[in-house]
Amino acid sequence: MNDTTASRITDASTPPLASDPNAPLDLAAFKHAFRRHAAGVAAVTTLTAEGKPVGFTATSLASLSAVPPLATFNMARSASTWPAIVENDHVIIHMLGARSRAVAEKLAGPNEQRFVGDHWHVGPYGLPVLNDVTSWMLGRIVERVSVHNSAIVVVQIEDGGIGADDDALLYHERAYRIPGEAV
Amino acid sequence: MNDTTASRITDASTPPLASDPNAPLDLAAFKHAFRRHAAGVAAVTTLTAEGKPVGFTATSLASLSAVPPLATFNMARSASTWPAIVENDHVIIHMLGARSRAVAEKLAGPNEQRFVGDHWHVGPYGLPVLNDVTSWMLGRIVERVSVHNSAIVVVQIEDGGIGADDDALLYHERAYRIPGEAV
Repeated sequence: MNDTTASRITDASTPPLASDPNAPLDLAAFKHAFRRHAAGVAAVTTLTAEGKPVGFTATSLASLSAVPPLATFNMARSASTWPAIVENDHVIIHMLGARSRAVAEKLAGPNEQRFVGDHWHVGPYGLPVLNDVTSWMLGRIVERVSVHNSAIVVVQIEDGGIGADDDALLYHERAYRIPGEAV
Repeated sequence: MNDTTASRITDASTPPLASDPNAPLDLAAFKHAFRRHAAGVAAVTTLTAEGKPVGFTATSLASLSAVPPLATFNMARSASTWPAIVENDHVIIHMLGARSRAVAEKLAGPNEQRFVGDHWHVGPYGLPVLNDVTSWMLGRIVERVSVHNSAIVVVQIEDGGIGADDDALLYHERAYRIPGEAV
């Protein structure tokens, strides 16, 4: 290891986000740090108890385990889709490619417009499956972990499909992008 | 919406991963679906109870909430770093840029080699902070959620630093990449 005198306060290469470690981290600083992180774009859909399709664009999809096949996504419990996530035990998780950019924006736009159009079809359990995605997975919700006003949703993957290949869709620095060169 | 006769079995554009919905999803199919998803690369470090630096490269880092600032990452409970995650209440989460590619590989390599070198310094609470990252955050572990043999770790961000700007480091289709053009 190197210079043990380096610290978050004195290390000029990493100026502190918050200089007082007891102070709450500045919200803008947290958001700034996370903008440095690139994320793949997924879409999560389900049905309300009344059978209405709902869903949203997510950048938090992550694999949790391969055996059994488990994945997680995070969401605000104030989100329009949250009540359906509580009521329904199944969701469809879609991996989006560049050709699904418009769908990603649609599912991040006004709630009442998200399923207006021919960009989806009825899949297993009557759940809405987005058309032309690079892959989709049927997930059974096995845990809903509430933390403050947000929740982590854990799903076990039960089925799915692979679509035509495409560049993965990324969200980074407030823009949709595709992966670039290997480094 | 469109063709209600489409289903996961008959929709040729999305051939099923598992044709029998009651069958366990094929492991290779799950992995194949997740390879379609691009992920930002982060590194998580902490100290064992004996004061030894430990850590790993993670593609599961996600924001959970901005107020309070919460993030999650997933890991196997068989991972070498897991005992320290149980013992220590703090971790450092780093967002890696392209210039940290070698560090990402180092922290995904043999355990005993991960902190041999001058690629890190001692930060808050004596925790190892990787040098020259695009941002790092001090996280206090607020939840460890075990699911089967894996765990979701929830951290509240208490401090951090921003480094020089860099292209975000991605992992996609088994290769390190940087983000490409906007779409």
